[in-house]
Amino acid sequence: MAFHPTQIKAMVFDTFGSVVDWRGGITRDLTEWGNANNVHIDWHAFAVAWRGRYQPQMEVVRSGNRPYTKLDILHRESLEFLIPQFGLEHLTEAQRIHVNKVWHRLTPWPDSAPGLARLKKKFIIGPLSNGNVALLTNLAKFSGTDWDVILSTELFKGYKPQPQTYLGVCEILDLAPDEVMMCAAHNYDLAAAQAVGLRTAFFARPTEHAENQTTDLKADRAWDVVAQDILDLADKMGA
Amino acid sequence: MAFHPTQIKAMVFDTFGSVVDWRGGITRDLTEWGNANNVHIDWHAFAVAWRGRYQPQMEVVRSGNRPYTKLDILHRESLEFLIPQFGLEHLTEAQRIHVNKVWHRLTPWPDSAPGLARLKKKFIIGPLSNGNVALLTNLAKFSGTDWDVILSTELFKGYKPQPQTYLGVCEILDLAPDEVMMCAAHNYDLAAAQAVGLRTAFFARPTEHAENQTTDLKADRAWDVVAQDILDLADKMGA
Repeated sequence: MAFHPTQIKAMVFDTFGSVVDWRGGITRDLTEWGNANNVHIDWHAFAVAWRGRYQPQMEVVRSGNRPYTKLDILHRESLEFLIPQFGLEHLTEAQRIHVNKVWHRLTPWPDSAPGLARLKKKFIIGPLSNGNVALLTNLAKFSGTDWDVILSTELFKGYKPQPQTYLGVCEILDLAPDEVMMCAAHNYDLAAAQAVGLRTAFFARPTEHAENQTTDLKADRAWDVVAQDILDLADKMGA
Repeated sequence: MAFHPTQIKAMVFDTFGSVVDWRGGITRDLTEWGNANNVHIDWHAFAVAWRGRYQPQMEVVRSGNRPYTKLDILHRESLEFLIPQFGLEHLTEAQRIHVNKVWHRLTPWPDSAPGLARLKKKFIIGPLSNGNVALLTNLAKFSGTDWDVILSTELFKGYKPQPQTYLGVCEILDLAPDEVMMCAAHNYDLAAAQAVGLRTAFFARPTEHAENQTTDLKADRAWDVVAQDILDLADKMGA
């Protein structure tokens, strides 16, 4: 079906990688914290290893082998798994809590906050992230991304790309799927949203995973909107 | 226990009556709409009658006699009930939907938006309302109340003053009950929140129900904070 921006009532955004820079954010935050607390490891390697456990951990939930468990808890379990590998056994419980909450303190890409501020004037905007509500709420305050509503897959007791997470957003906002646009730097996320009728917008984040990233460098399909970044998305949505 | 504002991480607000003026808002909106559409009834009487069915309808859900049902649906059922009483049988389906959504278009009390903007700089702020998520999201956009997170009792499949609605907020924000403050113009709401460990703030809305209102004119107990309005609450919270 032909697409026009005026059909859209709500735009929901993938968050980790799409709105905030988890790799740079974790590396900067924990390097600074490590320097202040005499904990000297390769925090960039640590960030990448931590994120590497993200999909496999969620898959245990998605497959039905484990009841829904908040991402804060999955992150903590991964942290405990990585602690011996990185020689961090001396961290106290309070330090482990602080390190785990680095996911609440990530920095946005430069275009995110100004682009979202423009979109907010015309559309309902929210994250649609696998981060839990507390994480996303704290992250929004920390990063200055001013959403209308926090939409976490926690509300739907699943993880993207499970269909109930996208359809749950439509149901809870009382909107038809084609009134909701999923916006992400990840093609797989958009494919799952499109499969259940949502509109889609892609913008690449070519250094999310590494300087020499090889995936998600461009749109895999003719999504409804393909933009350079969130400011360009605002342009293309007439906001 | 002694109370100090610095203990509080999140402040959640009753919405209908406390943040927005449902009686004045409905009367003004539907009088204007009625004049434009040649529907002339006593819209103030209609607003009061509609709200009169609010507690009895929710009580059917709270008592367990009906599964959780969104407030938008309860409002619509009440509207259908009132239509013959007010001679509104000629309203079309589209008009009924528009009238029902007046609850998404209520006006804030004058101190609400500026008071909340100040509190937002220091605390996580959200509604904690029996309105469903779509209603509260649309209402926030309409009324310019810029929340950090939309907390609806819909998320907890109940209605205030059921304890799971207050405790659900603490759980979803990953906060202890005494880090969360329930803020309302209704003593019963604060009593229920306090009973499960939340902090409490009262401010009166002496014309919410009528010009000659007799209830909730003052704090029934020594709540943690008693304020004149939300601007005064911001003063008292150091925001």
